[in-house]
Amino acid sequence: MSPALSQDSPAVHLPQLYPLLYEPLVRRALEEDLGRAGDLTSDAILPAHQMAEAQVVARAAGRVAGLLVALSAFRLLDPTIEIESSVSDGEDVEAGTVLATVRGPARSILSAERTALNLLGRLCGIATATRDMQRLVEPHGAHIVCTRKTTPGLRALEKYAVRCGGGHNHRFGLDDAVLIKDNHIALAGGIRPAVERARSHVGHLVKIEVEVDSLDQLREALDLGADVVLLDNMSLGVLREAVALAKGRAITEASGGINPKTAGAIAATGVDLLSMGWLTHSAPSLDVALNVG
Amino acid sequence: MSPALSQDSPAVHLPQLYPLLYEPLVRRALEEDLGRAGDLTSDAILPAHQMAEAQVVARAAGRVAGLLVALSAFRLLDPTIEIESSVSDGEDVEAGTVLATVRGPARSILSAERTALNLLGRLCGIATATRDMQRLVEPHGAHIVCTRKTTPGLRALEKYAVRCGGGHNHRFGLDDAVLIKDNHIALAGGIRPAVERARSHVGHLVKIEVEVDSLDQLREALDLGADVVLLDNMSLGVLREAVALAKGRAITEASGGINPKTAGAIAATGVDLLSMGWLTHSAPSLDVALNVG
Amino acid sequence: MSPALSQDSPAVHLPQLYPLLYEPLVRRALEEDLGRAGDLTSDAILPAHQMAEAQVVARAAGRVAGLLVALSAFRLLDPTIEIESSVSDGEDVEAGTVLATVRGPARSILSAERTALNLLGRLCGIATATRDMQRLVEPHGAHIVCTRKTTPGLRALEKYAVRCGGGHNHRFGLDDAVLIKDNHIALAGGIRPAVERARSHVGHLVKIEVEVDSLDQLREALDLGADVVLLDNMSLGVLREAVALAKGRAITEASGGINPKTAGAIAATGVDLLSMGWLTHSAPSLDVALNVG
Amino acid sequence: MSPALSQDSPAVHLPQLYPLLYEPLVRRALEEDLGRAGDLTSDAILPAHQMAEAQVVARAAGRVAGLLVALSAFRLLDPTIEIESSVSDGEDVEAGTVLATVRGPARSILSAERTALNLLGRLCGIATATRDMQRLVEPHGAHIVCTRKTTPGLRALEKYAVRCGGGHNHRFGLDDAVLIKDNHIALAGGIRPAVERARSHVGHLVKIEVEVDSLDQLREALDLGADVVLLDNMSLGVLREAVALAKGRAITEASGGINPKTAGAIAATGVDLLSMGWLTHSAPSLDVALNVG
Amino acid sequence: MSPALSQDSPAVHLPQLYPLLYEPLVRRALEEDLGRAGDLTSDAILPAHQMAEAQVVARAAGRVAGLLVALSAFRLLDPTIEIESSVSDGEDVEAGTVLATVRGPARSILSAERTALNLLGRLCGIATATRDMQRLVEPHGAHIVCTRKTTPGLRALEKYAVRCGGGHNHRFGLDDAVLIKDNHIALAGGIRPAVERARSHVGHLVKIEVEVDSLDQLREALDLGADVVLLDNMSLGVLREAVALAKGRAITEASGGINPKTAGAIAATGVDLLSMGWLTHSAPSLDVALNVG
Amino acid sequence: MSPALSQDSPAVHLPQLYPLLYEPLVRRALEEDLGRAGDLTSDAILPAHQMAEAQVVARAAGRVAGLLVALSAFRLLDPTIEIESSVSDGEDVEAGTVLATVRGPARSILSAERTALNLLGRLCGIATATRDMQRLVEPHGAHIVCTRKTTPGLRALEKYAVRCGGGHNHRFGLDDAVLIKDNHIALAGGIRPAVERARSHVGHLVKIEVEVDSLDQLREALDLGADVVLLDNMSLGVLREAVALAKGRAITEASGGINPKTAGAIAATGVDLLSMGWLTHSAPSLDVALNVG
Repeated sequence: MSPALSQDSPAVHLPQLYPLLYEPLVRRALEEDLGRAGDLTSDAILPAHQMAEAQVVARAAGRVAGLLVALSAFRLLDPTIEIESSVSDGEDVEAGTVLATVRGPARSILSAERTALNLLGRLCGIATATRDMQRLVEPHGAHIVCTRKTTPGLRALEKYAVRCGGGHNHRFGLDDAVLIKDNHIALAGGIRPAVERARSHVGHLVKIEVEVDSLDQLREALDLGADVVLLDNMSLGVLREAVALAKGRAITEASGGINPKTAGAIAATGVDLLSMGWLTHSAPSLDVALNVG
Repeated sequence: MSPALSQDSPAVHLPQLYPLLYEPLVRRALEEDLGRAGDLTSDAILPAHQMAEAQVVARAAGRVAGLLVALSAFRLLDPTIEIESSVSDGEDVEAGTVLATVRGPARSILSAERTALNLLGRLCGIATATRDMQRLVEPHGAHIVCTRKTTPGLRALEKYAVRCGGGHNHRFGLDDAVLIKDNHIALAGGIRPAVERARSHVGHLVKIEVEVDSLDQLREALDLGADVVLLDNMSLGVLREAVALAKGRAITEASGGINPKTAGAIAATGVDLLSMGWLTHSAPSLDVALNVG
Repeated sequence: MSPALSQDSPAVHLPQLYPLLYEPLVRRALEEDLGRAGDLTSDAILPAHQMAEAQVVARAAGRVAGLLVALSAFRLLDPTIEIESSVSDGEDVEAGTVLATVRGPARSILSAERTALNLLGRLCGIATATRDMQRLVEPHGAHIVCTRKTTPGLRALEKYAVRCGGGHNHRFGLDDAVLIKDNHIALAGGIRPAVERARSHVGHLVKIEVEVDSLDQLREALDLGADVVLLDNMSLGVLREAVALAKGRAITEASGGINPKTAGAIAATGVDLLSMGWLTHSAPSLDVALNVG
Repeated sequence: MSPALSQDSPAVHLPQLYPLLYEPLVRRALEEDLGRAGDLTSDAILPAHQMAEAQVVARAAGRVAGLLVALSAFRLLDPTIEIESSVSDGEDVEAGTVLATVRGPARSILSAERTALNLLGRLCGIATATRDMQRLVEPHGAHIVCTRKTTPGLRALEKYAVRCGGGHNHRFGLDDAVLIKDNHIALAGGIRPAVERARSHVGHLVKIEVEVDSLDQLREALDLGADVVLLDNMSLGVLREAVALAKGRAITEASGGINPKTAGAIAATGVDLLSMGWLTHSAPSLDVALNVG
Repeated sequence: MSPALSQDSPAVHLPQLYPLLYEPLVRRALEEDLGRAGDLTSDAILPAHQMAEAQVVARAAGRVAGLLVALSAFRLLDPTIEIESSVSDGEDVEAGTVLATVRGPARSILSAERTALNLLGRLCGIATATRDMQRLVEPHGAHIVCTRKTTPGLRALEKYAVRCGGGHNHRFGLDDAVLIKDNHIALAGGIRPAVERARSHVGHLVKIEVEVDSLDQLREALDLGADVVLLDNMSLGVLREAVALAKGRAITEASGGINPKTAGAIAATGVDLLSMGWLTHSAPSLDVALNVG
Repeated sequence: MSPALSQDSPAVHLPQLYPLLYEPLVRRALEEDLGRAGDLTSDAILPAHQMAEAQVVARAAGRVAGLLVALSAFRLLDPTIEIESSVSDGEDVEAGTVLATVRGPARSILSAERTALNLLGRLCGIATATRDMQRLVEPHGAHIVCTRKTTPGLRALEKYAVRCGGGHNHRFGLDDAVLIKDNHIALAGGIRPAVERARSHVGHLVKIEVEVDSLDQLREALDLGADVVLLDNMSLGVLREAVALAKGRAITEASGGINPKTAGAIAATGVDLLSMGWLTHSAPSLDVALNVG
């Protein structure tokens, strides 16, 4: 189902996406589209034995992500459909590129089309947006990271799309690191009790990140040994000072107001990471289509 | 859990969203965020008996949609959380409006926060975008309709958000109407065989819509008695002619290239409906937040 | 939700039907009826705040079964619906009897109606048919038993309906007793190896029943110590002999050709049990309805 | 797994039944029969390596429906079972016809038997009953349609069986058309407000059907532009008048009291459709069996 | 996937374990280990195209159980992994024995490793403990049986492991036999009403076992026709008397205080069965490992 | 349902166990025990209206864990059961201590009993074993940690039980930290490439632990900046040297051969953590019971 992965394919170093983890989502998406009665149009118009061939095509240029996930819609609906993908996740494609070819019963191909395209457009959209942002910050040695502001039910896939775009992943959920935010600090009564309690209760493999708004808060967090500091909504000047303070003591992450116009300057402050919720909650889909024949 | 619905609330005429249908999605979203170990940060920092109150706030102006769905994240995680919503779906709010107040165990409130906000931001984003488009076409008596280009797993909720925004719904899936598109026509060998087969195989409550690219195709579809014609990517001039041809014979729907700049002029051609995939696959989230008080 | 059970109610000695076991089925049935878009008719016609009261009524006389199961459709769709049942499972009712009253949002009541009635009609239908057959055989001390020829997904409920009708239950599945049928005997090479292997491999709490077609087979089964013998499709004369042979040695069960015309004579042979697949695969539904107002 | 479909097979124009949609049901049915401990009898009596061949046979004449669905029970339990079907859905068979042959481990074949037969008997029973009714009304140009009075969990399959029997499908659920019934009219305060609200709230692809009891109600519904009128429980004379009134204005559907004795006369009134709940809630199963050979 | 089963393999007479029944559990276990982000270590360190071969090895001597269940973890995660098992369930192996060899993508093999080993170690642990106990009682013609004190979610597999160890199975659940215990007797007001009610309400294929603490209770249970008597926590002397009393009238089962030191003497009393909860709730896992290379 | 938590209760600082996460498991366990037909014994012997009160009692001394999880079995089966717990997770109890009292329908209480006790016994067993081990190492400032050798399906609960016992948690799964083991090192071609690839591919919140067998390997891991080193199966002497080498550079964890006899001496080497698979795969259940009356 996949093209032979050459050792140079970017997909070789991407995380593994096992069908076990994404098939339930694709099945639900197919069921959501087919409803109880299935594809009224295709079933009425096309006899069961009619065969077809179709191309999955990128109508705009972008970065590929989730191709095998999207194509699994065809396989899960009808295992007799043959699928040949022509590119791999992590590759850049021009408008008009054929991403894959599917062959099999015409009804099945048309009935799975929308599910496959909806998944593909979204994941390529995220990867493309991430790539574009990453290119702006890369000259400064910084990395774009995503957040937990993801689509309900799609987090693992969207985080993977960020990786396809060259970005890094932040927490996958509430349970894989400590991130002490303003609400926690307010409820705990300060940064110190928050960090100390975190340190005494979490396991030896859990890092601690602290969100700070000011240089004073930053100093307190650094003194308490925070592994990462989240510098929230700081001006460029303050951010530069913050980075200098934290150098060698903690990883630095900037958040708030990051967009194509600001990213370069923010990265130039020397901050390690720029985090953007926008990548996963608001990046536009890539335009992809299925062409029969 | 909901405010008393006055007879004037726009929610009174919205479709009913039963928990039976959306709770499985909200549960999955919570499980996705909590993982196996739960909220490491809140559990470590806050003792189990600490209580809190927090406001769900719109940080930007917009149209509300899915408020009870989003708030159910708090209830499903911890039934002891009290929830009071201050607005209803379908209402417009200013930036800074408190949408709801939650009270209960601090841990539970913070642990459900992101799930609730991710849902709310997305649905309000769709409703807001729909409202803005609908306002552009309303003076011409036209309506905005959505498509099947929705987020996998969220179709029913996103279609509901379009309704909250004042738009109309197109098909919910492949099984609730016939929509004959270019791929069907190509495989069937023409519009005529496609429409005739559809008519002879589908039930008496199923309408038939046909996608046409030209006035010739339109005439053929009208002669075959199509209930609705989808006028795809036509210039304003051709669209105007098409609408005139179809008047009194079929409902007309324009698609392709519809955006805030073009919508008014397209609606002015007299077309009944303007359909936009963008509303559900690419509209940006509304900025919403939880403030512990 | 249920009427106070007096000590004389037949429901007092029926098996317990826990919501844990039947709610998933009722939820699936509701989802199946509501689809993605819900009840288009009620949502369009009735404002969200309109209240209603309705009666669940038996339009024909019969035996009640599964009333709480069926009514749970209202509760699962909308927990604010109040439900009052006026009869209990196992009772006989006349045509026109009100079985229950529901009060709450009009939309919710109408949207759950069909799911509730489909369940109720089927289960009462089975109970009524069982009762009628049981009455024919009771004077002879015999009992009607059901089979595994049940509706996929409804076995536990249908077996319960048989109990409500006064019948007894046969196996609930392949795993709660040994029933050696003709195919097993053929593949094992005879009754003897079949029974001997069964005895040596199954646990100490598992009974063994053997299907026999002739008196010779019956003798062999009895000599091997079968706990129950299934006398399949025997003439009345042979059946009478078979019962005499088995008396005191094994429980006897007749199957094949049992219907209202033959049941009395078959029971008169002294056989202990008469098993009928018809009760669960072909008994007609009882006519039940929902009347608003 | 299926016989090559010739272009003349009735199955060529039946809707597609994707395994994605029916396999969960078949799995649940198998689990329901196997319980926790599996097939005590076959496992005890037959060694794991014993092979067998068996025929699925119709013991009565009828119309085939759901054959591949039923046979999937063998495949889902044990993928090593080979399955060969000898007829297709939509075909008529005589008593004694072999519908399929299965070959593989004897234990697996016997353990899946009852699940396969329960499904097959029910679906063929519905198709056969539909066929018989359809034959009665066909000379008059009318069609039999089913209702939503289906078995919980089996709606899509039972609607498909009706299609195999030559009938047409009514709504698959509450969400694929508007059907305004007596309860809606009562709660809305008349036919006019009911139809007007429906028209203003539902999408452009949704048809509206109105149930009427009298010619006055019929005239009102027609004047309001109902797409379909459901003529409930009318005498033959009134029905004839109603059909004349509606001619060219709306599709007509008769319901109530339709059975083999009345169907011909009702169809002779010129009504378009005759709807029967009985087909799916009370039609007897077709007698099918598995013979090890 | 499995070795050819010779007619002498102990697996030939073990119950069939269908993937339908155990795959959901194995999938859940894989999902539990992989979480959202998958195997961070293997994905980061090993390129996607790296292949490997590994052996599943018993590091201690024991009885094999659940080998195919455990190996299914590899197959369910990655169907391209080739699996070759070298022994069968029910066989005894020495420390160091290779139980199976797996070949395929290195990432997939390492990612499924722990899930496979956790299952295998537990099931072999139970089988080994059962075998050791059974060897102690076998000279006296007695059998070890397990109880319902099993791991939540694993009952069917653990009961199967007991069979692999040569033990017999007690009830699989509350629904496959009657077992009247002290709490039931207290609530029913004595052994007599308890047994009489049981006999009058349960089906003809259900056996009745009664727990007794004294010879008086035993006599009452035997007079009432109990099929099996559970002799709870009796001294050896009383147990011997009890067995003598019950001989030829009921199956006898001893429980309480059974361990390697006491089992022989208890079996020597002539009791038929010795039941041990310890086998499934506290038996230590067998040490198994995966060795790459 | 829970006792008021005083500020001193150990439960105040335990992680939150949300019903959302454990109820599916408890439901599956109840379904597993009830099967299709439910509790044959209780339903036959006890009339539906009989009420009872019962105590959940520890029959041996130990540390409480998972009490609310276990008690949820009663609530999930029958919401009318009243539950009062008398101790909290994390407390030590003597033999004979009443842990909770339940009141409600006698049938429901007895039917949920075994499910509740199976869960409680296992979790208290793990907590008790952890407590006993932790007491041995605590004087040396060390901590006991668990592993991923947990029961399939129960990982989160078993990890929680370890916390109740005073132990710390290691990884919850493959996705919450990097642990480079011997198999990874072999496949990557050494510790250096393994650690370097891990560092370049994982996110900024992920720690890296490396398993080492020798002091040479340890030096290499430390030089590469491993956050944690797993010192596997080292003699006390080597372990002491390893701890000295790693001091101030990495957290140290000992594994292999840890048991009550060795734990004190191992902790005395100054190692930070001692990890034990035995706690979750082989610790015996605590003896708990339900006493009616």
